[in-house]
Amino acid sequence: MRPGMPGGSYRPLSQSDVERIHDAALDILERIGIGDGIPQFVEAATAAGCTLSDAGRVRIPRELVAEMIERAPSSITLYGREPRHDLELSGKRVHFGTAGAAISVLDSHSGRHRPSTLTDLYDFSRLADRLENVHWFSRTVVPTELSDPAVLDINTAYATMAGTSKPIGTSFMQAASVAPTIEMFDMVLGGPGRFAERPFCHLHATTMVPPLRFAIDTAHVMVAAMEHGMPISAITAGQAGATAPATLAGALVQTTAGTLGALTFVQLLSPGHPFIFANWPFVSDLRTGAMSGGSAEAGILNAASAQIANFYDLPSGVAAGMADSKVPDVQAGHEKALTTALAGLSGANLVYESFGMLASLLACSNEMMVIDNDILASVLRAVRGIEVTDETMATDVIEDAVVGEGHFLAAEQTLAVMETEYVYPTVGDRLSPDDWHDQGATDAWQRAGRRVQGILSRHYPAHIAPERDALIRERFDIRLSREDMSPASRRW
Amino acid sequence: MRPGMPGGSYRPLSQSDVERIHDAALDILERIGIGDGIPQFVEAATAAGCTLSDAGRVRIPRELVAEMIERAPSSITLYGREPRHDLELSGKRVHFGTAGAAISVLDSHSGRHRPSTLTDLYDFSRLADRLENVHWFSRTVVPTELSDPAVLDINTAYATMAGTSKPIGTSFMQAASVAPTIEMFDMVLGGPGRFAERPFCHLHATTMVPPLRFAIDTAHVMVAAMEHGMPISAITAGQAGATAPATLAGALVQTTAGTLGALTFVQLLSPGHPFIFANWPFVSDLRTGAMSGGSAEAGILNAASAQIANFYDLPSGVAAGMADSKVPDVQAGHEKALTTALAGLSGANLVYESFGMLASLLACSNEMMVIDNDILASVLRAVRGIEVTDETMATDVIEDAVVGEGHFLAAEQTLAVMETEYVYPTVGDRLSPDDWHDQGATDAWQRAGRRVQGILSRHYPAHIAPERDALIRERFDIRLSREDMSPASRRW
Repeated sequence: MRPGMPGGSYRPLSQSDVERIHDAALDILERIGIGDGIPQFVEAATAAGCTLSDAGRVRIPRELVAEMIERAPSSITLYGREPRHDLELSGKRVHFGTAGAAISVLDSHSGRHRPSTLTDLYDFSRLADRLENVHWFSRTVVPTELSDPAVLDINTAYATMAGTSKPIGTSFMQAASVAPTIEMFDMVLGGPGRFAERPFCHLHATTMVPPLRFAIDTAHVMVAAMEHGMPISAITAGQAGATAPATLAGALVQTTAGTLGALTFVQLLSPGHPFIFANWPFVSDLRTGAMSGGSAEAGILNAASAQIANFYDLPSGVAAGMADSKVPDVQAGHEKALTTALAGLSGANLVYESFGMLASLLACSNEMMVIDNDILASVLRAVRGIEVTDETMATDVIEDAVVGEGHFLAAEQTLAVMETEYVYPTVGDRLSPDDWHDQGATDAWQRAGRRVQGILSRHYPAHIAPERDALIRERFDIRLSREDMSPASRRW
Repeated sequence: MRPGMPGGSYRPLSQSDVERIHDAALDILERIGIGDGIPQFVEAATAAGCTLSDAGRVRIPRELVAEMIERAPSSITLYGREPRHDLELSGKRVHFGTAGAAISVLDSHSGRHRPSTLTDLYDFSRLADRLENVHWFSRTVVPTELSDPAVLDINTAYATMAGTSKPIGTSFMQAASVAPTIEMFDMVLGGPGRFAERPFCHLHATTMVPPLRFAIDTAHVMVAAMEHGMPISAITAGQAGATAPATLAGALVQTTAGTLGALTFVQLLSPGHPFIFANWPFVSDLRTGAMSGGSAEAGILNAASAQIANFYDLPSGVAAGMADSKVPDVQAGHEKALTTALAGLSGANLVYESFGMLASLLACSNEMMVIDNDILASVLRAVRGIEVTDETMATDVIEDAVVGEGHFLAAEQTLAVMETEYVYPTVGDRLSPDDWHDQGATDAWQRAGRRVQGILSRHYPAHIAPERDALIRERFDIRLSREDMSPASRRW
């Protein structure tokens, strides 16, 4: 399994459904518009032909939206700090990674939920560094012990990049944090301007306050990101039934309008800026109003979002793998497998939230992340599909077996395709019931615990060169101590 | 969610892939043929233009196969004993149900695996009777305490129908059991000839000994089923890497050839007989040779099988929802969700093995069956997809919210679509972590235990009228006692 295999064999919407949703979204942008535009945007938008409603909403003509879709790049690269981790976002190439702003972790030792910390974020990062199906690592948990926005922002970015050399993503509480963070990224890479050459971190920008108002603070963060060449994942996350229509089609229309509004914002202010069309319709359980990330409806909506982004030929981001369950139990397993399968098969370029997330994004778990790595191996296998060639159809092999001894285990082809046609689980168990009992009758959660232990007790990667780290610690208020990053002083 | 919603939005094979596999299967039937044909078939086949190889294999010309595909009905009905449970198999209408020949159950009380019994089979049947997403019930476990084939066959059929009025399926150890079983079915319905009017039980026939030999005993069972108007699900279950090629495409070619061979067998001997094209390619873990029912590859293969049956416009049966895990843990959850989603979305008419199965078909579990009912609710929701209409796109509702108070919870539409747009889990939990802890911090397996208890302690349905049951017990050696079927003497 490799990053970037093409999806698209699952299409929840017909072509005409996509066009109708597109058309309704354009209609909304043109008639209703988007509120709370920041001055830079209002100025550029009106110069480009937008009008303001009486309430000050920016109404965007459909021709302008079409022009901005054309202007945005169809293909962008997410860079790793090691080039082998680079991801090319184009077409229907599928990648799975993390995201989230969970405020708790399911503690590996106590098995209880507790507030998440900066050390947890670092641990998730170094765990992700070792899990082959995590294609990039974005902030999973909020370091809840940090309250100052500047400290929170720089430390979130530091802990995220400290554990992995894969592409990363982060978000900012305030625009003022962007420049120092880029400065830190430059220092890690060896000097000023280096980040812009290979921007290894993309911005998670929750662009809208649904329904259809810009998130003002985020808009300023985005402007700062544009100035520093930081790719922007523009996330529009309306929650069907609460902040978006309860009908699935309506939720799609609203979030598509919002993401197109964010696209217009970015492409007007920074033509050609790397932009990820991150249409994330979420779902409410209408009995309680609570978000349900693990529902089928959340899965279908995000698969449809990928299809819409593919229709625009824009790099896409969706959310899947969120579970409503609080622990890695059978519920978490089925919620994650269904939603990630739908997203992956639909051909989303970036499937966010795919690892570790529980409790509808309120919690994250190391063990769950390890299990998700198995789940995503299977999903990626499904994305890859079936290669049909004369060789794989194997009529000669069949004939040999029929006229021969009737089995295929000894066939030359069988050994040859063992690693190419099949994936094997890491914590998944395929023993017979008797052998499984003999070997301790463990469940997958327990086995995942051993793998977490195996990785986190040993994998303290040196992804930040010590001399650069020293300079960074001189320059910035880094709260992740060297002890936090050392096996000698950590308990695993 | 209702039985028979159309799938087909997932297509693992391109149209040309399907045609190549079809062509390779025809080539195999024509050149290599199928061994161990019983005399009735050899006679009919040679009269129809088949030739025998030196080894006595029946070589079937492609024109004859094409004719038999045409001859088989594109649409058949599986009847329930109550008409509300009737299933129409045609097009890409999707149904989920059970099957299996598990030899153990995960005991609800001890939590341990133990040999399965006739009472277990009855309990699975009455549980399935109450689970809304089980669309039919076929034998899940073998009553291992019964060794005499005649006693085993009649009691398997009895216990299967005793618990549910949904369509059922069964299999037979010997052809001699078919006539008495049909006689018992006639008695249940009220008299001779009644079963043939509404055949509520279909035959599971494992037609092939892979690679490409007829299973002789089963062939005789099929002939008997044809005589009694019993629909036949002709299962060809080669195991990739063991009894079929290790390449996925090769496994498909071989099983497709086998199922087309079985189709030719049935349609030559009983033109127009209700026939389910049940192409079940299974998978080996090539590291051990053990079957892996929960693998992605098993899921992809069975989805592709549905696509091939859809290409022939024949009623299709596939297998999905098998888990390698021994217990209802996170592994079981993700294995089941992925494989059933692939099968359902591909548009399989009957997805067998979808409920309760663990340990790659070696074990079955009541709790797992209840959880599978949640899983399949989500999968069916995904099969249903998104309805895109002016009403569901809800631009007016969006406009009202934008100019109004900004939320949708109070919108008239939200309440109206609560039950139509969303499904709600029965044992799945959507509480916040705090509330979940306050309510006992249960996992889904534990909650499933309560639902099993709730159903099995109370639901002893009277699906066999007492006076008819008395006659059946006089006529046949029924081993499921009245005490086994009574709440007064059972512990739950």
